[in-house]
Amino acid sequence: MDPKTVTKIPDWVWEFHGHTCPFMPIGYRMGQIAMRELDVKHIGDHGAFGLSEMGVGHPQTCMIDGFMAVTGCTYGKLMMERLNYGKVACILFVPGKGAVRVYLKSEFQDELGKQEFFVYRKKGIEPSQVPPDVVKKVVDLVLEASEASMFAVSRLPDFTFGRPKGSFAKMKCSTCGEYVFERYVRMVDGRPECIPCSDYTQSWVNVLKGVQ
Amino acid sequence: MDPKTVTKIPDWVWEFHGHTCPFMPIGYRMGQIAMRELDVKHIGDHGAFGLSEMGVGHPQTCMIDGFMAVTGCTYGKLMMERLNYGKVACILFVPGKGAVRVYLKSEFQDELGKQEFFVYRKKGIEPSQVPPDVVKKVVDLVLEASEASMFAVSRLPDFTFGRPKGSFAKMKCSTCGEYVFERYVRMVDGRPECIPCSDYTQSWVNVLKGVQ
Repeated sequence: MDPKTVTKIPDWVWEFHGHTCPFMPIGYRMGQIAMRELDVKHIGDHGAFGLSEMGVGHPQTCMIDGFMAVTGCTYGKLMMERLNYGKVACILFVPGKGAVRVYLKSEFQDELGKQEFFVYRKKGIEPSQVPPDVVKKVVDLVLEASEASMFAVSRLPDFTFGRPKGSFAKMKCSTCGEYVFERYVRMVDGRPECIPCSDYTQSWVNVLKGVQ
Repeated sequence: MDPKTVTKIPDWVWEFHGHTCPFMPIGYRMGQIAMRELDVKHIGDHGAFGLSEMGVGHPQTCMIDGFMAVTGCTYGKLMMERLNYGKVACILFVPGKGAVRVYLKSEFQDELGKQEFFVYRKKGIEPSQVPPDVVKKVVDLVLEASEASMFAVSRLPDFTFGRPKGSFAKMKCSTCGEYVFERYVRMVDGRPECIPCSDYTQSWVNVLKGVQ
């Protein structure tokens, strides 16, 4: 294997992710490909969106951390979101430049699934507790496999995504006294309240726990 | 100021976040406090949840990146989520150890809002384009202010949060042929499809764009 084609993940990305697994590097490679396709560099401020087709309750979501790290589309900057399709794909959308989707080929998913690493994971053994040589083997596989064997890349000409216009306006909840950004103020008996004080929280907790 | 009390943010956390702003360090400090309160270290694998009370369409969300980095509760590992309350607070929940909430005191929010940094931000100038001395002043403020002046810390005895049980089961969409984790398979005319092929996507896009 030509060493030039082996993807190198910076140490800090591993440190951010917290453990060594094959999915973070898959997301990192997806981000690299999407950035190349749209001709953009790592985005320090804002102006782009990463959308993962992952959801919850299944493996491989770790790829989102790699995608965030390489593109700069972080969750904290509101530039990363899950679409909850349960598919191993990421989209990079740069307004004015378009959107590109990178899917982990089904054949590669099949190949990956045969790795010994998953014998441990299916038993519920955490990545940091899997024998290092077993981890190394699966990580090397995803760092060394050719792009063509791993990824299907496509443009999404109609794709769009946006956020509501930002506002600095905030007010205090009339019950707890804490600040609330206006968008999230709720009215109870004619008084402004935060969502927890308004007791309108349960639906959100349910969304997070069960619906996705 | 006693230099021992000044919070030091590792370089890689700045690199992950992408620009220098005061919010990422606020989240970092919130995470440090919550971890100390629950007596946990940085979590490399899974087993804890970070919940931000932030939403979209307002400032200060960058704090989520600092909180993820210091706690190890990353979005990719499904350990971080927004509660969309529009409040400047983070919760760390460790099953078996409890939950702690850290709120950025209203008085400190008022103090922070007077900083020149926000004159630039309210004009839409990105953090990386704000004069460095202006950025340094506000970042130093949040790194050096005493914990007592900045944060209100409370236990949440009834707080709970969970994820659905994970499954490796997946099947192929009968239309596009791509793999879908079972939780997200939808039925159309008796055939299994992925959400995009099923045309059931629009509601999610709307949720992400408008409802939160």
